Amino acid sequence: MSVRRKRDYPVAEIRRYLEPGPVVLVSSAWRGRTNIMTMGWHMVAEFVPSLVACYVWDANLSFGMIRKSRECVINVPTVDMLDTVVDIGNCSGRDVDKFAAFGLTPQPARKVAAPLIGECHASLECRLHDGRWIDRHSIFVFEVVAAHVALRPKHPRTVHYMGDGEFMVAGGVVSRRSRFRPDRL
Amino acid sequence: MSVRRKRDYPVAEIRRYLEPGPVVLVSSAWRGRTNIMTMGWHMVAEFVPSLVACYVWDANLSFGMIRKSRECVINVPTVDMLDTVVDIGNCSGRDVDKFAAFGLTPQPARKVAAPLIGECHASLECRLHDGRWIDRHSIFVFEVVAAHVALRPKHPRTVHYMGDGEFMVAGGVVSRRSRFRPDRL
Repeated sequence: MSVRRKRDYPVAEIRRYLEPGPVVLVSSAWRGRTNIMTMGWHMVAEFVPSLVACYVWDANLSFGMIRKSRECVINVPTVDMLDTVVDIGNCSGRDVDKFAAFGLTPQPARKVAAPLIGECHASLECRLHDGRWIDRHSIFVFEVVAAHVALRPKHPRTVHYMGDGEFMVAGGVVSRRSRFRPDRL
Repeated sequence: MSVRRKRDYPVAEIRRYLEPGPVVLVSSAWRGRTNIMTMGWHMVAEFVPSLVACYVWDANLSFGMIRKSRECVINVPTVDMLDTVVDIGNCSGRDVDKFAAFGLTPQPARKVAAPLIGECHASLECRLHDGRWIDRHSIFVFEVVAAHVALRPKHPRTVHYMGDGEFMVAGGVVSRRSRFRPDRL
């Protein structure tokens, strides 16, 4: 686990990192405290604006921090971080400072107060776009307002939670570009 | 591509097949017609009831068929079906009968009128649970009311869309069960 050098990435193209369905680490900040949550329930919901819908369990400390600050950062970890990903999901920010406890590097974001996690492959700065379904379904709709992606590897080995303590690790990448209509890519 | 023998599967446990984020084939039926759509934007949104949120592009023929029938089946294909998955997403049910054109086997569902796709690894019968965000965000919230999963393989090689015609193919499965608190699995 080391800090990855990243470049700015077009927010309209972040599906590349979220649509395959990796488990993500969501960082938040509120009144001088930060926190990190492991999250598996998210989906892309629009290209422009760049929207992402997420389910956040209301028992998590992060639920209130994100709701009050109306911001978070969605960070995409890779398989070398798997034990950290699991451990973050199995303790509470009420008891520990997760950045310190897990040796993760908070980095300043460009547009939100929540910190980026330096060790992750990609970090997406998010602002709450629609909070009307927080009470009804625990669903937050965020707009990705800035994105940072590591220069390499080209195909990060993300981890995909299956429940029951099991994870699928991303395998190879295949292209079927030539079969697509250009407007359907 | 052949029809898979399936067993009933507990609806509260379907995260196993959706949470890793595979591209899925959504089958629908309306007024004697059936259709199939390729979909990458979905997330689990509750265990009990078993809820799944999906974004459906309103230009798709399936959008109206699903909205009117208030039902669909979410089918999980594997990598042997990849060319079919791509081709289904690159034509319209306005022009072709997709079951016939792609040699797929419609099978009767138990609780909905939309057919299962026999060749897929898993098929989830869905009823519309909350349609209030269809107009606002093109987001449908479904309840999975019955589920069918192939007896084997234990770990299907699903495909995960990255945009730009590229797919990540599911790799190996690793367990970290012993690191979890039982209530956090």
